[in-house]
Amino acid sequence: MIEASAEYVPAGKLSYGMVGGGPGSFIGDVHRRSIRSEGLGELKAGCFSRSPEGTLITGAAQGIAQDRLYPGFEEMAAEEAKRSDGIDFAVVVSPNTSHYAAVKAFLSRGIPVVCEKPFTVEEGEARELAELAKEKNLLCAVTYTYTGNVTVKHARELVRRGEIGDILCVNGEYPQEWLLPPAEKQGSKQAVTRTDPALAGKSNSVGDLGTHIESLVSYITGLRIKSLCARLDRIGKDRVLEDNATIMLEYQGGARGVYWTSQIASGYDNGLRIRIFGTKGALDWNEEACNYLWLSRFGQPNALLSRAKDPFYPQAQSYSRLPSGHPEGYFEALANIYRTYIGALIKQKKGEALDEKDLDFPDLQMGIDGVRFTGKCVESSEKGAVWVPV
Amino acid sequence: MIEASAEYVPAGKLSYGMVGGGPGSFIGDVHRRSIRSEGLGELKAGCFSRSPEGTLITGAAQGIAQDRLYPGFEEMAAEEAKRSDGIDFAVVVSPNTSHYAAVKAFLSRGIPVVCEKPFTVEEGEARELAELAKEKNLLCAVTYTYTGNVTVKHARELVRRGEIGDILCVNGEYPQEWLLPPAEKQGSKQAVTRTDPALAGKSNSVGDLGTHIESLVSYITGLRIKSLCARLDRIGKDRVLEDNATIMLEYQGGARGVYWTSQIASGYDNGLRIRIFGTKGALDWNEEACNYLWLSRFGQPNALLSRAKDPFYPQAQSYSRLPSGHPEGYFEALANIYRTYIGALIKQKKGEALDEKDLDFPDLQMGIDGVRFTGKCVESSEKGAVWVPV
Amino acid sequence: MIEASAEYVPAGKLSYGMVGGGPGSFIGDVHRRSIRSEGLGELKAGCFSRSPEGTLITGAAQGIAQDRLYPGFEEMAAEEAKRSDGIDFAVVVSPNTSHYAAVKAFLSRGIPVVCEKPFTVEEGEARELAELAKEKNLLCAVTYTYTGNVTVKHARELVRRGEIGDILCVNGEYPQEWLLPPAEKQGSKQAVTRTDPALAGKSNSVGDLGTHIESLVSYITGLRIKSLCARLDRIGKDRVLEDNATIMLEYQGGARGVYWTSQIASGYDNGLRIRIFGTKGALDWNEEACNYLWLSRFGQPNALLSRAKDPFYPQAQSYSRLPSGHPEGYFEALANIYRTYIGALIKQKKGEALDEKDLDFPDLQMGIDGVRFTGKCVESSEKGAVWVPV
Amino acid sequence: MIEASAEYVPAGKLSYGMVGGGPGSFIGDVHRRSIRSEGLGELKAGCFSRSPEGTLITGAAQGIAQDRLYPGFEEMAAEEAKRSDGIDFAVVVSPNTSHYAAVKAFLSRGIPVVCEKPFTVEEGEARELAELAKEKNLLCAVTYTYTGNVTVKHARELVRRGEIGDILCVNGEYPQEWLLPPAEKQGSKQAVTRTDPALAGKSNSVGDLGTHIESLVSYITGLRIKSLCARLDRIGKDRVLEDNATIMLEYQGGARGVYWTSQIASGYDNGLRIRIFGTKGALDWNEEACNYLWLSRFGQPNALLSRAKDPFYPQAQSYSRLPSGHPEGYFEALANIYRTYIGALIKQKKGEALDEKDLDFPDLQMGIDGVRFTGKCVESSEKGAVWVPV
Repeated sequence: MIEASAEYVPAGKLSYGMVGGGPGSFIGDVHRRSIRSEGLGELKAGCFSRSPEGTLITGAAQGIAQDRLYPGFEEMAAEEAKRSDGIDFAVVVSPNTSHYAAVKAFLSRGIPVVCEKPFTVEEGEARELAELAKEKNLLCAVTYTYTGNVTVKHARELVRRGEIGDILCVNGEYPQEWLLPPAEKQGSKQAVTRTDPALAGKSNSVGDLGTHIESLVSYITGLRIKSLCARLDRIGKDRVLEDNATIMLEYQGGARGVYWTSQIASGYDNGLRIRIFGTKGALDWNEEACNYLWLSRFGQPNALLSRAKDPFYPQAQSYSRLPSGHPEGYFEALANIYRTYIGALIKQKKGEALDEKDLDFPDLQMGIDGVRFTGKCVESSEKGAVWVPV
Repeated sequence: MIEASAEYVPAGKLSYGMVGGGPGSFIGDVHRRSIRSEGLGELKAGCFSRSPEGTLITGAAQGIAQDRLYPGFEEMAAEEAKRSDGIDFAVVVSPNTSHYAAVKAFLSRGIPVVCEKPFTVEEGEARELAELAKEKNLLCAVTYTYTGNVTVKHARELVRRGEIGDILCVNGEYPQEWLLPPAEKQGSKQAVTRTDPALAGKSNSVGDLGTHIESLVSYITGLRIKSLCARLDRIGKDRVLEDNATIMLEYQGGARGVYWTSQIASGYDNGLRIRIFGTKGALDWNEEACNYLWLSRFGQPNALLSRAKDPFYPQAQSYSRLPSGHPEGYFEALANIYRTYIGALIKQKKGEALDEKDLDFPDLQMGIDGVRFTGKCVESSEKGAVWVPV
Repeated sequence: MIEASAEYVPAGKLSYGMVGGGPGSFIGDVHRRSIRSEGLGELKAGCFSRSPEGTLITGAAQGIAQDRLYPGFEEMAAEEAKRSDGIDFAVVVSPNTSHYAAVKAFLSRGIPVVCEKPFTVEEGEARELAELAKEKNLLCAVTYTYTGNVTVKHARELVRRGEIGDILCVNGEYPQEWLLPPAEKQGSKQAVTRTDPALAGKSNSVGDLGTHIESLVSYITGLRIKSLCARLDRIGKDRVLEDNATIMLEYQGGARGVYWTSQIASGYDNGLRIRIFGTKGALDWNEEACNYLWLSRFGQPNALLSRAKDPFYPQAQSYSRLPSGHPEGYFEALANIYRTYIGALIKQKKGEALDEKDLDFPDLQMGIDGVRFTGKCVESSEKGAVWVPV
Repeated sequence: MIEASAEYVPAGKLSYGMVGGGPGSFIGDVHRRSIRSEGLGELKAGCFSRSPEGTLITGAAQGIAQDRLYPGFEEMAAEEAKRSDGIDFAVVVSPNTSHYAAVKAFLSRGIPVVCEKPFTVEEGEARELAELAKEKNLLCAVTYTYTGNVTVKHARELVRRGEIGDILCVNGEYPQEWLLPPAEKQGSKQAVTRTDPALAGKSNSVGDLGTHIESLVSYITGLRIKSLCARLDRIGKDRVLEDNATIMLEYQGGARGVYWTSQIASGYDNGLRIRIFGTKGALDWNEEACNYLWLSRFGQPNALLSRAKDPFYPQAQSYSRLPSGHPEGYFEALANIYRTYIGALIKQKKGEALDEKDLDFPDLQMGIDGVRFTGKCVESSEKGAVWVPV
């Protein structure tokens, strides 16, 4: 145990509204809790559900004024944009297929947006939204939550500083078991949202899990995908979208990769793991043990780095709240993204300049990349698992 | 991944004040963040530091009104008791030796208290405070944080339901490495607080770490200590209090145990581990991997239980926020204690009856037990590491 | 610890000769030691090296009579076939490219052969040899050593008995780090043997490591490969053969798989790992922890099976020598193959019938499969990493 | 994977006889296999069982000439001493209580002995035998098998070279589960041998397991025990000897330790683990994962050393047979002791001088230490778990 980082003092508090996150949603509560735990913002408006009842229930539980509970995101965007005390930003956590319209509604009215991944279903939509945000100079984020981990940030620094040399190959995997049974027919709202193309879009496993691998590899290494060959498997009976996928990749510069995602892999809860191999060493990061990071330096024993114990680079360690051995988890990873995002928003409001550190959160370009990646995987698989340029 | 528990909706929000937790404190921030993250309470008053400047700095950062920042806990207790909007409870996280007076100040004025462990330095003090709380019918808690873990609560249920049979022996350990160097001479405020008898009381390692073992074993198994034999070691140069300790125990009913605590064990961050062996099986819980629990059932393969994936008993699972594989950590453990404590306080205010589930947080009896345990360890060691009745 | 299996008593002792395994060889010594440790056979003849000096040195160290040390395998086969006390079988552990001729020499003269994997370089050669062995009724084996592990044998039984249901997908990996540096230019004989096409044949990583994955998957599940898409990467400078490879597979019946092999994966010694996912559960086996086996049964906690502790099926447990927790390793895995092979040879000599259990060692069909698999991977990769039927 | 050590070539072969190791024995086979696998010796005589039938059965299975199968060790020692081709050394693996007389029989006739641990039951007996061996200049060994592990030998060198600084404290544990049921009443010969004082002597758990901890700590650190306080627990019904024990220790020089042994710890196969903490770092060795060694160097990340991959000291690495990641196990640990012992015996026969390296096997002094340790634990416990000098 070393001394924890100095206590984080938020730059201020903003108000926000939420689209989605109504009764039965898991991710809405995670966003609210992460923001609240940091003392970063207050939920002031919402359109939590497609059903007005759902919105009322969640609105009441969250203590939102009745006049700021909206039947649709269009009304919400319009009304909040008019109010002098309108929300500072919107959080979109509704089903994938609704992201484009919801985000557009807010951006059009000058309200910055934090959007759950995947950003949109079609790449063109994603590009259009990014263009709009740029035009209006609106800071936006796409919540690739795992990029918020202290250990991931340290891994990124290790790569940047050349500690493992040039990247040679990458192995990413994200197995889960929860869709081994037909959960979408057994009353699981989550399962419906993932497996119904009307809600999920054109991909299940790659869009939901594969984009986490893609964004982490990109975030940690900076590698850009040159081409890929993907096979998307529909293993569960009657499934329209894939629930298992294997993807071979070539990155620009020549490094090679393989990704595997599955929702039918018995024994796995949330087995996101990224291994990056370079000319001088390697990294091995596993989400379920997210306070640790394996580091190989060729010629030396494998080392298990522990958050806040071992010398982490200052940018990574600045996100560490607790002494080593006191586990931080999923909420802190997301809170780290909000911490940076809201800090940047406040700076921007004050007219202050933003540097790279201020902008260390997953942005719309990462959102576009994820949508493009998913689209290319679907395209490759539909053509017979052939190589397609990315 | 199974569906997470239904979102927790707090019964309401209370206001609280804090003693201790000023600049450089680690634990004060942890308490504040845990309460805030649940949306359970608002910090409205404080005496954060023995120095008025410290209190002002933390008070400003926390957004507390100036007139509710106090130079001492006596003033705070007196003033807050008078206010119609006075705090609903006080949180005491100042150095150990100040607990008794601080807690007494609030209890005397009818304000319930949540006190960091150890409750007090002397057992007599602890008993006196518990008596006072009882007289005044004030709900109080001692934050043995680790008892808040979902996996610990499930372990407790497993034992209660006889799943591992009668307890035969216990092995508890809590090694750390941070006091291997003379950190108290190197500017670590934490190290001074732990090693200076004027702040820590008569024990360092047993009081700080050993009581976590003691409370967890008691919480999980219900076992009461009958006698013990303790050797307290002062290994770091010039240390007055022990930084390593070994304790052999006999429990009422005949089960045997051994505890080991250390702050000079190179390689360990926060290695709290509890193993409980029974006639039918065994449990193995490790704080650093607190989303998991090893379960042995004699004659079957060892099983690794995963929070929210494997069938946890409802009382344990009700504290689970995230789907399996999405790590919860230290903050959630403490938040679980506050969730229950504040819920009980609200019920009590409303005049509702409290059942066992409402009271599933570490109470003053656990506080007394911890102080008694520490005192007996010191006594045994001073007599030459001999057996003493407990 | 449970009682170990009853002590194994060999059915008798045979004499054997060896081709390869001279000074600097690692695998020759492993074969000799495995045979010797079981008391199964005596090394009586050899052609250990292409250099006569090498053969003399190893022959002397092994205590072989001078007149049974041969300059070439042809002479050895011819002479030993003539002797009344000639060898009962030959062990071929010379470089890959010599296997075909060496095995043929012995088979032609009626001497059974145990051949290191890969069986041959070309599939046609492998088929020819298998045909020859069949014609002459000679029992032969290809030493896919890892199939000899007790835990692998238990895994096979679990699959056969339907304990994990129908196989849905497979993930096999075998990373090593030893060829990250240009070891073949730094005096490593092993590295030369693997990377020089004149010795290794047309594949390095797939032939050396990938065939272990392929044979284990086949042995455990019985799955036959229908088609594959392989990308073979030459990452080390000046390498002619691949040192990293990714292979996507479809099995007959529809199950899917992905294999990854690497010799440039920093941090890995010998990371052979096989994961098999079915409709009811999954298996996870890791060579470096070969006394254990993870078993998932969907809906139950993951279980860690321990050799000789947990109830292993009799056919698997019959190969267990030591009580649980007393590690068996690589030598025992190979010895298990020899135990069965030599037992079968003795039975055959006596004219006794051989049942499935007697023949539970990797046979020439597995040898052919491995050569075919390697060839198809090379073919796929050369065509641009496209799908090819297998 | 690095190149394995150069192949070990035995200095020669000796003949030996065995006392004990008859039908149903586990340890006899382990000794025979370890010697055989190295090509170090041939079993030529035996008295394998107290029943002549047992000796005949094992003798036949081992291929021993009928005239060298003896009804008792006295006859065996007398006859073998007379033969010109008599055994070069005797291996004693009979029940504990018979060791003294058996060893004495051979030593008296000038035959060196390898004795299973514990050496004897009484310390006086052990000293007498050591004296006799010294008088007659007979090399002897006590097979503390685990000291033969390559990783243990490397750990020893790390301590000797000061890599972890001065030793501060030690934590040794050896839990097993096999005596949780009353195995001695259920037909387990092993259980009877361990729990019946007529066969085991005055201690079960400490003598069987605790002495392994004691010998490993002594071998690795060189620490000598100054005093101890032991509590021996009889947990299984009707047990006369302890099946669980806790021991607190003080070493000469001031270091502290705690040992725990158990045979009733559900979930454990053979959980021997030694942790050694020093002023500069720490070691953590676990028998079930004996190819690895955790090394903490204070201020650096914890490192997992892998046999034959990471730079092991030459004396340790010289015992390594296989490349890294290819597991060695229990047989190799014992074979390492025999390799050194028999090498020394051959050198001695040739009149060559023996250096420290030649004598790197557990000797009679370690045997005496183990008996003394066990005796002192029993004494302490019988006096009420009080401190006794050692």
